[in-house]
Amino acid sequence: MEREPTRVMVAVNESTIKGKPHPSISSKRAFEWTLEKMVRSNASDFKILLLHVHVVDEDGFDEVDSIYASPDDFKDMRESNKSKGLHLLEFFVNKCHEFGVSCEAWIKKGDPKDVICQEVSRVRPDLLVLGSRGLGRFQKVFVGTVSGFCVKHAECPVLTIKRNADETPSDLADD
Amino acid sequence: MEREPTRVMVAVNESTIKGKPHPSISSKRAFEWTLEKMVRSNASDFKILLLHVHVVDEDGFDEVDSIYASPDDFKDMRESNKSKGLHLLEFFVNKCHEFGVSCEAWIKKGDPKDVICQEVSRVRPDLLVLGSRGLGRFQKVFVGTVSGFCVKHAECPVLTIKRNADETPSDLADD
Repeated sequence: MEREPTRVMVAVNESTIKGKPHPSISSKRAFEWTLEKMVRSNASDFKILLLHVHVVDEDGFDEVDSIYASPDDFKDMRESNKSKGLHLLEFFVNKCHEFGVSCEAWIKKGDPKDVICQEVSRVRPDLLVLGSRGLGRFQKVFVGTVSGFCVKHAECPVLTIKRNADETPSDLADD
Repeated sequence: MEREPTRVMVAVNESTIKGKPHPSISSKRAFEWTLEKMVRSNASDFKILLLHVHVVDEDGFDEVDSIYASPDDFKDMRESNKSKGLHLLEFFVNKCHEFGVSCEAWIKKGDPKDVICQEVSRVRPDLLVLGSRGLGRFQKVFVGTVSGFCVKHAECPVLTIKRNADETPSDLADD
Protein backbone atom coordinates (compact mmCIF):
# COMPACT_ATOMS: atom_id res chain seq x y z
CA MET A 1 0.00 0.00 0.00
CA GLU A 2 1.55 3.26 -1.15
CA ARG A 3 0.68 6.10 1.22
CA GLU A 4 1.06 9.80 0.55
CA PRO A 5 4.10 11.24 2.34
CA THR A 6 3.55 13.62 5.26
CA ARG A 7 4.12 17.09 3.80
CA VAL A 8 6.11 19.26 6.20
CA MET A 9 6.45 22.96 5.43
CA VAL A 10 9.53 24.52 7.03
CA ALA A 11 9.79 28.32 6.98
CA VAL A 12 13.42 29.38 6.66
CA ASN A 13 15.06 32.78 6.80
CA GLU A 14 18.42 34.47 6.75
CA SER A 15 20.43 35.31 9.81
CA THR A 16 20.20 38.90 11.03
CA ILE A 17 23.83 38.67 12.14
CA LYS A 18 26.02 40.46 9.62
CA GLY A 19 28.33 38.45 7.42
CA LYS A 20 27.90 36.03 4.58
CA PRO A 21 24.34 35.04 3.75
CA HIS A 22 23.57 32.08 5.95
CA PRO A 23 20.45 30.63 7.57
CA SER A 24 19.20 32.01 10.88
CA ILE A 25 20.11 30.01 13.98
CA SER A 26 16.48 29.22 14.71
CA SER A 27 15.46 28.13 11.21
CA LYS A 28 18.56 25.93 10.85
CA ARG A 29 17.84 24.33 14.22
CA ALA A 30 14.14 23.75 13.34
CA PHE A 31 15.10 22.19 10.01
CA GLU A 32 17.73 19.89 11.55
CA TRP A 33 15.38 18.81 14.34
CA THR A 34 12.75 17.89 11.73
CA LEU A 35 15.14 15.64 9.83
CA GLU A 36 16.77 14.02 12.88
CA LYS A 37 13.78 13.56 15.16
CA MET A 38 10.81 13.22 12.83
CA VAL A 39 11.96 12.07 9.39
CA ARG A 40 14.77 9.93 10.87
CA SER A 41 15.57 7.05 8.51
CA ASN A 42 12.10 7.09 6.93
CA ALA A 43 12.78 9.63 4.19
CA SER A 44 10.23 8.19 1.78
CA ASP A 45 7.45 8.89 4.30
CA PHE A 46 8.05 12.65 4.26
CA LYS A 47 8.32 15.55 1.86
CA ILE A 48 9.90 18.85 2.95
CA LEU A 49 8.42 22.09 1.61
CA LEU A 50 10.87 24.96 2.14
CA LEU A 51 9.42 28.45 2.15
CA HIS A 52 11.55 31.55 2.37
CA VAL A 53 9.74 34.86 2.76
CA HIS A 54 11.82 37.71 1.48
CA VAL A 55 11.15 40.81 3.56
CA VAL A 56 10.95 43.89 1.37
CA ASP A 57 12.83 46.49 3.37
CA GLU A 58 10.83 49.66 2.81
CA ASP A 59 13.18 51.77 4.90
CA GLY A 60 16.17 50.61 2.88
CA PHE A 61 18.29 50.08 5.98
CA ASP A 62 20.08 47.19 4.32
CA GLU A 63 21.29 49.54 1.65
CA VAL A 64 22.66 52.48 3.62
CA ASP A 65 26.25 51.65 2.79
CA SER A 66 25.59 51.32 -0.90
CA ILE A 67 26.06 54.02 -3.53
CA TYR A 68 23.47 54.41 -6.25
CA ALA A 69 24.62 56.23 -9.35
CA SER A 70 22.69 54.60 -12.13
CA PRO A 71 19.55 52.54 -12.69
CA ASP A 72 21.80 49.49 -12.98
CA ASP A 73 22.82 49.86 -9.34
CA PHE A 74 19.25 49.20 -8.31
CA LYS A 75 19.11 46.27 -10.65
CA ASP A 76 22.29 44.91 -9.03
CA MET A 77 20.71 45.33 -5.61
CA ARG A 78 17.63 43.43 -6.64
CA GLU A 79 19.77 40.71 -8.18
CA SER A 80 21.83 40.53 -5.02
CA ASN A 81 18.73 40.18 -2.81
CA LYS A 82 17.39 37.52 -5.08
CA SER A 83 20.66 35.57 -5.01
CA LYS A 84 20.76 35.82 -1.20
CA GLY A 85 17.37 34.11 -1.03
CA LEU A 86 18.45 31.50 -3.58
CA HIS A 87 21.67 30.87 -1.66
CA LEU A 88 19.56 30.20 1.43
CA LEU A 89 17.27 27.77 -0.35
CA GLU A 90 20.28 26.05 -1.93
CA PHE A 91 21.67 25.37 1.55
CA PHE A 92 18.49 23.63 2.70
CA VAL A 93 17.82 21.81 -0.57
CA ASN A 94 21.38 20.41 -0.46
CA LYS A 95 20.82 19.20 3.10
CA CYS A 96 17.57 17.47 2.09
CA HIS A 97 19.37 15.87 -0.84
CA GLU A 98 22.17 14.57 1.42
CA PHE A 99 19.56 13.24 3.84
CA GLY A 100 17.69 11.55 1.00
CA VAL A 101 14.34 13.25 1.60
CA SER A 102 12.47 14.85 -1.29
CA CYS A 103 11.78 18.57 -1.14
CA GLU A 104 10.46 21.64 -2.89
CA ALA A 105 11.61 25.18 -2.18
CA TRP A 106 10.31 28.59 -3.15
CA ILE A 107 10.51 32.28 -2.29
CA LYS A 108 7.68 34.72 -1.62
CA LYS A 109 7.82 38.42 -0.83
CA GLY A 110 6.03 40.15 2.02
CA ASP A 111 5.46 40.11 5.76
CA PRO A 112 6.63 36.65 6.91
CA LYS A 113 3.76 35.92 9.31
CA ASP A 114 1.07 36.82 6.77
CA VAL A 115 2.78 35.12 3.85
CA ILE A 116 3.45 31.91 5.80
CA CYS A 117 -0.23 31.64 6.78
CA GLN A 118 -1.32 32.40 3.19
CA GLU A 119 1.02 29.73 1.84
CA VAL A 120 -0.30 27.20 4.38
CA SER A 121 -3.83 27.91 3.14
CA ARG A 122 -2.71 27.56 -0.49
CA VAL A 123 -0.36 24.57 -0.26
CA ARG A 124 -2.17 22.69 2.56
CA PRO A 125 0.81 20.99 4.23
CA ASP A 126 0.22 18.46 7.02
CA LEU A 127 2.49 20.42 9.34
CA LEU A 128 4.21 23.80 9.58
CA VAL A 129 7.61 23.90 11.32
CA LEU A 130 8.93 27.21 12.64
CA GLY A 131 12.08 28.14 14.46
CA SER A 132 11.60 30.52 17.36
CA ARG A 133 13.97 32.83 19.17
CA GLY A 134 12.09 32.11 22.40
CA LEU A 135 11.81 35.78 23.32
CA GLY A 136 10.12 36.91 26.51
CA ARG A 137 7.07 39.13 26.65
CA PHE A 138 9.06 42.37 26.92
CA GLN A 139 11.28 41.67 23.91
CA LYS A 140 8.31 40.61 21.81
CA VAL A 141 6.71 44.02 22.07
CA PHE A 142 9.54 45.46 20.02
CA VAL A 143 10.43 42.73 17.56
CA GLY A 144 7.15 40.83 17.14
CA THR A 145 7.08 37.09 16.67
CA VAL A 146 6.22 35.11 13.62
CA SER A 147 5.75 31.85 15.49
CA GLY A 148 3.20 33.22 17.98
CA PHE A 149 1.08 34.56 15.12
CA CYS A 150 1.28 31.36 13.06
CA VAL A 151 0.43 29.07 16.01
CA LYS A 152 -2.84 31.01 16.28
CA HIS A 153 -3.67 31.58 12.64
CA ALA A 154 -2.12 28.90 10.41
CA GLU A 155 -4.67 26.38 9.18
CA CYS A 156 -2.58 23.32 10.05
CA PRO A 157 -0.69 21.90 13.04
CA VAL A 158 2.31 24.06 13.98
CA LEU A 159 5.57 22.87 15.50
CA THR A 160 7.70 25.58 17.13
CA ILE A 161 11.30 24.86 17.98
CA LYS A 162 13.36 27.21 20.10
CA ARG A 163 17.09 27.75 19.72
CA ASN A 164 19.34 25.82 22.05
CA ALA A 165 20.59 27.88 24.98
CA ASP A 166 24.20 27.48 23.80
CA GLU A 167 23.32 28.88 20.36
CA THR A 168 21.59 32.01 21.63
CA PRO A 169 23.43 35.19 20.62
CA SER A 170 24.16 37.93 23.16
CA ASP A 171 21.45 40.13 21.61
CA LEU A 172 18.35 37.95 21.91
CA ALA A 173 16.67 39.73 19.00
CA ASP A 174 19.51 38.58 16.72
CA ASP A 175 19.13 35.26 14.98
CA MET B 1 22.91 0.85 14.22
CA GLU B 2 20.27 1.01 16.94
CA ARG B 3 19.09 4.58 17.50
CA GLU B 4 17.13 5.86 20.46
CA PRO B 5 13.46 6.39 19.58
CA THR B 6 12.09 9.93 19.38
CA ARG B 7 10.23 10.43 22.67
CA VAL B 8 6.94 12.25 22.09
CA MET B 9 5.01 13.49 25.11
CA VAL B 10 1.28 13.89 24.41
CA ALA B 11 -0.79 15.70 27.03
CA VAL B 12 -4.29 14.24 27.20
CA ASN B 13 -7.38 15.30 29.09
CA GLU B 14 -11.02 14.49 29.55
CA SER B 15 -13.83 16.05 27.61
CA THR B 16 -15.68 18.87 29.32
CA ILE B 17 -18.87 17.72 27.62
CA LYS B 18 -21.03 15.82 30.09
CA GLY B 19 -21.46 12.09 29.70
CA LYS B 20 -19.26 9.08 30.04
CA PRO B 21 -15.58 9.76 30.68
CA HIS B 22 -13.97 10.12 27.28
CA PRO B 23 -11.03 12.05 25.85
CA SER B 24 -11.41 15.67 24.85
CA ILE B 25 -11.89 16.35 21.14
CA SER B 26 -8.60 18.25 20.90
CA SER B 27 -6.42 15.75 22.75
CA LYS B 28 -7.85 12.83 20.76
CA ARG B 29 -7.22 14.69 17.51
CA ALA B 30 -3.64 15.60 18.53
CA PHE B 31 -2.92 12.00 19.50
CA GLU B 32 -4.34 10.58 16.28
CA TRP B 33 -2.46 13.12 14.13
CA THR B 34 0.79 12.12 15.86
CA LEU B 35 0.32 8.45 15.04
CA GLU B 36 -0.94 8.93 11.49
CA LYS B 37 1.28 11.75 10.28
CA MET B 38 4.48 11.41 12.31
CA VAL B 39 4.86 7.84 13.58
CA ARG B 40 3.22 6.38 10.46
CA SER B 41 4.49 2.83 9.87
CA ASN B 42 7.74 3.45 11.76
CA ALA B 43 6.54 2.55 15.24
CA SER B 44 9.94 1.37 16.47
CA ASP B 45 11.36 4.87 15.85
CA PHE B 46 9.01 6.50 18.37
CA LYS B 47 7.89 6.21 21.96
CA ILE B 48 4.70 7.92 23.15
CA LEU B 49 4.65 9.39 26.66
CA LEU B 50 1.06 10.04 27.74
CA LEU B 51 0.55 12.60 30.50
CA HIS B 52 -2.83 13.32 32.04
CA VAL B 53 -3.01 16.19 34.49
CA HIS B 54 -5.87 15.75 36.90
CA VAL B 55 -7.30 19.15 37.81
CA VAL B 56 -8.12 19.31 41.49
CA ASP B 57 -11.44 21.13 41.59
CA GLU B 58 -11.11 23.35 44.66
CA ASP B 59 -14.57 24.80 44.27
CA GLY B 60 -16.12 21.34 44.16
CA PHE B 61 -18.41 22.26 41.27
CA ASP B 62 -18.19 18.72 39.92
CA GLU B 63 -19.72 17.45 43.11
CA VAL B 64 -22.74 19.72 43.57
CA ASP B 65 -25.22 16.96 42.77
CA SER B 66 -23.65 14.48 45.17
CA ILE B 67 -24.74 13.80 48.74
CA TYR B 68 -22.10 13.31 51.39
CA ALA B 69 -23.26 11.51 54.52
CA SER B 70 -20.19 9.63 55.65
CA PRO B 71 -16.43 9.69 55.24
CA ASP B 72 -16.79 6.81 52.77
CA ASP B 73 -18.70 9.09 50.38
CA PHE B 74 -15.57 11.18 49.98
CA LYS B 75 -13.50 8.09 49.51
CA ASP B 76 -15.90 6.98 46.74
CA MET B 77 -15.56 10.38 45.09
CA ARG B 78 -11.78 10.17 45.14
CA GLU B 79 -11.90 6.63 43.77
CA SER B 80 -14.27 7.77 41.04
CA ASN B 81 -11.97 10.63 40.02
CA LYS B 82 -9.02 8.31 39.99
CA SER B 83 -10.80 5.75 37.84
CA LYS B 84 -11.88 8.51 35.40
CA GLY B 85 -8.21 9.38 34.87
CA LEU B 86 -7.25 5.74 34.52
CA HIS B 87 -10.08 5.15 32.05
CA LEU B 88 -8.68 7.99 29.95
CA LEU B 89 -5.15 6.62 29.97
CA GLU B 90 -6.47 3.14 29.18
CA PHE B 91 -8.10 4.53 26.02
CA PHE B 92 -4.83 5.99 24.74
CA VAL B 93 -2.62 3.09 25.85
CA ASN B 94 -4.94 0.69 24.00
CA LYS B 95 -4.68 2.82 20.84
CA CYS B 96 -0.86 2.79 21.06
CA HIS B 97 -0.94 -0.96 21.53
CA GLU B 98 -3.16 -1.42 18.45
CA PHE B 99 -0.86 0.83 16.47
CA GLY B 100 2.19 -1.10 17.64
CA VAL B 101 4.03 1.86 19.18
CA SER B 102 5.47 1.60 22.69
CA CYS B 103 4.17 4.00 25.32
CA GLU B 104 4.17 5.03 28.96
CA ALA B 105 1.30 6.80 30.69
CA TRP B 106 0.94 8.52 34.02
CA ILE B 107 -1.24 10.96 35.97
CA LYS B 108 -0.20 14.10 37.84
CA LYS B 109 -2.33 16.49 39.86
CA GLY B 110 -2.34 20.27 39.54
CA ASP B 111 -2.69 23.12 37.07
CA PRO B 112 -2.23 21.55 33.62
CA LYS B 113 -0.02 24.28 32.12
CA ASP B 114 2.38 24.30 35.08
CA VAL B 115 2.46 20.53 35.50
CA ILE B 116 3.02 19.89 31.78
CA CYS B 117 6.03 22.25 31.75
CA GLN B 118 7.38 20.68 34.96
CA GLU B 119 7.04 17.20 33.50
CA VAL B 120 8.82 18.30 30.31
CA SER B 121 11.72 19.54 32.44
CA ARG B 122 11.78 16.30 34.42
CA VAL B 123 11.22 13.73 31.63
CA ARG B 124 13.04 15.61 28.82
CA PRO B 125 10.99 14.40 25.82
CA ASP B 126 12.10 15.32 22.29
CA LEU B 127 8.70 16.84 21.57
CA LEU B 128 5.53 17.92 23.38
CA VAL B 129 2.24 17.51 21.50
CA LEU B 130 -0.82 19.49 22.60
CA GLY B 131 -4.32 19.70 21.31
CA SER B 132 -5.76 23.17 21.10
CA ARG B 133 -9.31 24.46 20.95
CA GLY B 134 -8.14 27.26 18.67
CA LEU B 135 -9.91 29.94 20.67
CA GLY B 136 -9.79 33.58 19.66
CA ARG B 137 -8.39 36.36 21.79
CA PHE B 138 -11.70 37.23 23.43
CA GLN B 139 -12.53 33.67 24.49
CA LYS B 140 -9.03 33.12 25.85
CA VAL B 141 -9.43 35.87 28.40
CA PHE B 142 -12.05 33.79 30.18
CA VAL B 143 -10.89 30.23 29.77
CA GLY B 144 -7.08 30.57 29.45
CA THR B 145 -5.06 28.35 27.17
CA VAL B 146 -2.66 25.63 28.07
CA SER B 147 -1.08 25.45 24.62
CA GLY B 148 -0.18 29.16 24.45
CA PHE B 149 1.58 28.93 27.80
CA CYS B 150 3.46 25.73 26.93
CA VAL B 151 4.65 27.00 23.53
CA LYS B 152 6.36 29.82 25.42
CA HIS B 153 7.61 28.00 28.50
CA ALA B 154 8.14 24.28 27.79
CA GLU B 155 11.81 23.37 27.44
CA CYS B 156 11.37 21.34 24.26
CA PRO B 157 9.80 21.75 20.81
CA VAL B 158 6.00 22.05 20.98
CA LEU B 159 3.50 20.87 18.38
CA THR B 160 0.01 22.38 18.69
CA ILE B 161 -2.86 20.81 16.80
CA LYS B 162 -6.23 22.49 16.52
CA ARG B 163 -9.54 20.66 16.33
CA ASN B 164 -11.02 20.17 12.90
CA ALA B 165 -13.75 22.66 12.06
CA ASP B 166 -16.32 19.84 11.77
CA GLU B 167 -15.49 18.61 15.28
CA THR B 168 -15.87 21.96 17.00
CA PRO B 169 -18.77 22.01 19.49
CA SER B 170 -21.30 24.83 19.52
CA ASP B 171 -19.78 26.24 22.71
CA LEU B 172 -16.16 26.85 21.68
CA ALA B 173 -14.95 26.59 25.27
CA ASP B 174 -16.24 23.00 25.39
CA ASP B 175 -13.90 20.26 24.33
